[in-house]
Amino acid sequence: MALSEFALIDRYFRNCGMKRTDVRLGVGDDAALLDSPAGCDLVAAIDTLVDGVHFPPGCPAASVGHRVLAVNLSDLAAMGAKPAWALLALTLPNIDEGWLDEFAAGFSALARSHDVALVGGDTTSGPLCVTVQILGHVPHSQALLRSGARPGDLVFVSGTPGDAAAGLAVEQGRLQGAPDVAAHLRKRFLYPSPRMALGKSLRGYASACIDVSDGLLGDVGKLAQASGCGVELSYKELPVSEELVAAVGDVRARELALTGGDDYELCFTVSPSNVGRLRQDLPPERWGYSLIGTVREASGAVVTQNGNVMEFSHSGYDHFGK
Amino acid sequence: MALSEFALIDRYFRNCGMKRTDVRLGVGDDAALLDSPAGCDLVAAIDTLVDGVHFPPGCPAASVGHRVLAVNLSDLAAMGAKPAWALLALTLPNIDEGWLDEFAAGFSALARSHDVALVGGDTTSGPLCVTVQILGHVPHSQALLRSGARPGDLVFVSGTPGDAAAGLAVEQGRLQGAPDVAAHLRKRFLYPSPRMALGKSLRGYASACIDVSDGLLGDVGKLAQASGCGVELSYKELPVSEELVAAVGDVRARELALTGGDDYELCFTVSPSNVGRLRQDLPPERWGYSLIGTVREASGAVVTQNGNVMEFSHSGYDHFGK
Repeated sequence: MALSEFALIDRYFRNCGMKRTDVRLGVGDDAALLDSPAGCDLVAAIDTLVDGVHFPPGCPAASVGHRVLAVNLSDLAAMGAKPAWALLALTLPNIDEGWLDEFAAGFSALARSHDVALVGGDTTSGPLCVTVQILGHVPHSQALLRSGARPGDLVFVSGTPGDAAAGLAVEQGRLQGAPDVAAHLRKRFLYPSPRMALGKSLRGYASACIDVSDGLLGDVGKLAQASGCGVELSYKELPVSEELVAAVGDVRARELALTGGDDYELCFTVSPSNVGRLRQDLPPERWGYSLIGTVREASGAVVTQNGNVMEFSHSGYDHFGK
Repeated sequence: MALSEFALIDRYFRNCGMKRTDVRLGVGDDAALLDSPAGCDLVAAIDTLVDGVHFPPGCPAASVGHRVLAVNLSDLAAMGAKPAWALLALTLPNIDEGWLDEFAAGFSALARSHDVALVGGDTTSGPLCVTVQILGHVPHSQALLRSGARPGDLVFVSGTPGDAAAGLAVEQGRLQGAPDVAAHLRKRFLYPSPRMALGKSLRGYASACIDVSDGLLGDVGKLAQASGCGVELSYKELPVSEELVAAVGDVRARELALTGGDDYELCFTVSPSNVGRLRQDLPPERWGYSLIGTVREASGAVVTQNGNVMEFSHSGYDHFGK
């Protein structure tokens, strides 16, 4: 049975995600009506995943549903914002009800865990491509920007970047490893955890923040550039997971930590005067972040080991570059 | 010279659309920061155009830029809302700077004419596909919904639906006509005018409203269904343009007015007690709308001529149906 566009929206997306009382009108009219809280800025981001570009052909549909929301949530985390509402534009080559069931389940589970309502969407036929637009809130003047870093600030990153790039290689059959190692890395690519609690908690501590989606070195470089500074990262302080080292060795692990994409960790800077308070209020071992470098005056992002600058050929994923 | 994703966003989209003082932070960070006005609902819609599905291959880039914003604006018009901010997700097979120049010009001109700021976006590589998410505002409890029609209400439509479907046929070389007629119809497809002023002005008059994007008969049927009613349209009252009749004859013109897509007109209902006030305050000849039928209790959308129900095989465009 072919489902019409309207039946499709009704079946899969009308009850997707969380119910929220600030949704006056959700899926089903020409547009959604939403009740913005007073005292907050509205925070808006949009991100697209394209089949064969952002995920390999045959990738589990639940992962596609999870990731398209996760990449958007991660943008809000990087602003210190709390998410509220999402809109979904889904372009499908055909109606595969099994795929749609899984996609909606993956999307909905992550949405519910972050209290996000799906309030609107559009379904079209064409090559598989998924866009989510996310809306959230942050108290006036408290958003974390890329542009607030100053020379002398310390640079931190959450989690263990590089895992997702290795997980993609596992998913594509380009990398093997012990079953538990491979499963861990694959999960880090397929089901990333956006750092919503950390992002929100960094308000009042971090001077700048960006989410690491295109590779740590490239993304920290964007933060430094937006701040009119540069940054120096310490090679040996890069946090790499045991699983990543087990799968690819220490040298390649650090390379992936610097240049791999799809991690959705947060990279943030903190002024020296705030670092004591940060470590006390948000203990790094509990919140899962590491000191990896310092902001400097000279522009650019460099990695040093024993005082020597190291060369990396690829400083982050660029969809059209090189 | 290949442009990187970041240079591309910077060159084409950082200054696209209107500058607005309620944009605290626009294109260039992880997300935009926006200042919602008090006393209003936030109104949000999302729509995608896919190459070869929503526009023919080789369609002017300026038209793609115009239309992807117009279809979203039209959703806001149907809610009686005023647009404010847009986000753009652009998937491109390659960087064609001439195409991007034209696309951005088409988008920006329409955005400026409706006071819309482009506040965020994402560019990815893949098959040509464009998604816009639009945000706007409507005073609390004043939005026009699909669900407010009641039996006995009168049904109106703006403009002359059917022109865009004929214009698409001209664009694809499937329909010829006198040069001025062909140019008029083609323009109606390539550069539709969303009915923003009418939508906003209908607050307090219309009992229900929907935008006509998938065909008048199908869309008025959705309005009726959302209202728990049906609708009866009068075949001979359908407003068809002289150009459409000149190109395809009266019978086919009325068929296209009922079933053609891409018009982005407004179809709305008004209770008999409000019709006098509507006609006085918003004279139809100046605002460009026509009475075409009545809401009835029996479900479904029918067209009648001299008291007889007429059959139409295709009641609106459905991306996956049939």
